[in-house]
Amino acid sequence: MLPSIEWKNSKVYMIDQTLLPFELKHLELDNFRDVATSIKVMNIRGAPAIGVAAAMGMALASIEYKELPKEKFLEKMEEAANIIKSTRPTASNLFWAVNRIWNIVSTYPDHPTIISDLVIEEAKLMAQEDINVNKNIGKHGASLLSNDDVVLTHCNAGSLATVQYGTALAPVRAAIEEGKQIKVIADETRPRLQGARLTAYELQYDKIPVKVISDTSSGLLMYLGLINKVIVGTDRVTSDAVFNKIGTYLVALAAKENNIPFYVAAPTSTLSLNENVRDVTIEQRDSREVSHVLGKLQIVPDGVDCLNYAFDITPFKLVTGIITEDGVFNPKELIKRYK
Amino acid sequence: MLPSIEWKNSKVYMIDQTLLPFELKHLELDNFRDVATSIKVMNIRGAPAIGVAAAMGMALASIEYKELPKEKFLEKMEEAANIIKSTRPTASNLFWAVNRIWNIVSTYPDHPTIISDLVIEEAKLMAQEDINVNKNIGKHGASLLSNDDVVLTHCNAGSLATVQYGTALAPVRAAIEEGKQIKVIADETRPRLQGARLTAYELQYDKIPVKVISDTSSGLLMYLGLINKVIVGTDRVTSDAVFNKIGTYLVALAAKENNIPFYVAAPTSTLSLNENVRDVTIEQRDSREVSHVLGKLQIVPDGVDCLNYAFDITPFKLVTGIITEDGVFNPKELIKRYK
Repeated sequence: MLPSIEWKNSKVYMIDQTLLPFELKHLELDNFRDVATSIKVMNIRGAPAIGVAAAMGMALASIEYKELPKEKFLEKMEEAANIIKSTRPTASNLFWAVNRIWNIVSTYPDHPTIISDLVIEEAKLMAQEDINVNKNIGKHGASLLSNDDVVLTHCNAGSLATVQYGTALAPVRAAIEEGKQIKVIADETRPRLQGARLTAYELQYDKIPVKVISDTSSGLLMYLGLINKVIVGTDRVTSDAVFNKIGTYLVALAAKENNIPFYVAAPTSTLSLNENVRDVTIEQRDSREVSHVLGKLQIVPDGVDCLNYAFDITPFKLVTGIITEDGVFNPKELIKRYK
Repeated sequence: MLPSIEWKNSKVYMIDQTLLPFELKHLELDNFRDVATSIKVMNIRGAPAIGVAAAMGMALASIEYKELPKEKFLEKMEEAANIIKSTRPTASNLFWAVNRIWNIVSTYPDHPTIISDLVIEEAKLMAQEDINVNKNIGKHGASLLSNDDVVLTHCNAGSLATVQYGTALAPVRAAIEEGKQIKVIADETRPRLQGARLTAYELQYDKIPVKVISDTSSGLLMYLGLINKVIVGTDRVTSDAVFNKIGTYLVALAAKENNIPFYVAAPTSTLSLNENVRDVTIEQRDSREVSHVLGKLQIVPDGVDCLNYAFDITPFKLVTGIITEDGVFNPKELIKRYK
């Protein structure tokens, strides 16, 4: 299995995901500025992975500045924090991760060299925590899968979107580790094609059977009985709906219509149960992501505009179960447990 | 408005649709072999347009062979018919059109020069009939549209898929001719992107407002109240379902869920009400249409297979109304009238 990011010998190693699935190249980064750039240009993506990258970026900054006097160290670390946080202004994991590191930097009274050691340990701990959460999601989710199931997933909530193991793909991995035969069908996930590129790549890499379909096909496959379960990831779960990559709602509607269980893999860090649908603004992205496939191939005539909403709203009534690191809950149980 | 195909001065003129939306080029064809090739390589596509192209191809053959003795003429015309019919073996309109011409060729007792004139007139009549059918679909469908409606369509059932005016887009054209303000949202329609390329092109050409979305977006737009009506075309209507381009079923499910009327524009030539869902085999096409966008840009890793079903099954319960050249009917009324 491919870890998306690792800390080794005081450096950060990450897969350059912009080159996937055609080239597997690791970036070796020894300073926080390069980490910030790698988040910005999406060498690394996926909320959990971005959070850990940000923490490791702070760790690199602490090494760079640890010989400075304490006051100067704090000043420089704050600069680094701001640079990292500015890379993807809507990614809440980024703020959470930088702030968790900043709490150490700003509260411990020790010398910067000691603080730097603490920060490095914290960043490594956050990476390990992510893997642990995902393994637990896998364990609970695997109990939902039967031998010979064909699982549809949308977008990439796999190993590449996390440090390792994935969220939506974790139950698949765990079920296979338990000896079940599981096949995956990956929606290509237009416009940015994370399913076709990343989900297909990481499953093929791990020898898990996968086929790709265009996003138009999931309904027919369910109608024909060729899909048994759906598992997707999520960016945010509110008190009434699941926010995830655009296209998720259509998949959920087709699953409901065809009595196919629709599960959402949601680390508790994505739960935002004091919000509801009305509190969330759906990000609209550049028209060009639709009109030019991967920025390379134009498919829409010049002068015709495209609408490009990035996230979908899937109401709770379409959700069979939500898989957290603590267990599997239907929406009512989720609210009761976590709100 | 762009006619996809025309008969002028004993020649066939057609738009080369493989070059759209980036180049508007007309092919000038003076023999049936070139017409057959143009159907095969999809310079022209769309069931009604293909039928008329086939008839015009037969007309060109009749000109080429009209000086031959009658027996030789018949022999050569049969050869031409077979060549044309072999171009797209699953296109039922092709057989219907060639057979309609063949009935004239084989039954009239006159000299080949006279038969050739009859064949030419029949081919021109078939083109005119197609336009008339579409205009009537437009007239009936326009009554369903209100001022300021935003209409979602999937694939291209427009002017380019017919001789002119279109089927699914006919109501939009007619409503605008009546003075209503109508906007269109076009699903890009993976894998072959007929919506992004052709629907966007022909509507822009006719100054009808159009925006393109990825196929993943229609559900959210309906949920947000940004779409008022859906109109799609069809390849075949059975006694229980509408067969149309893959992706239609998901659109219909989202429309139903959000109480948005879902209409199907269906010339009576597409009605096949003695069949039902179990009688129809869904065509599966080359995996490469999914893995390589427009044959040009690879998006799926080597070695990962894709599923590529070409058509979707939309059960009648999701269909608000079917628009034929005779009027608008709900599924029950349609069966009563035409079965």
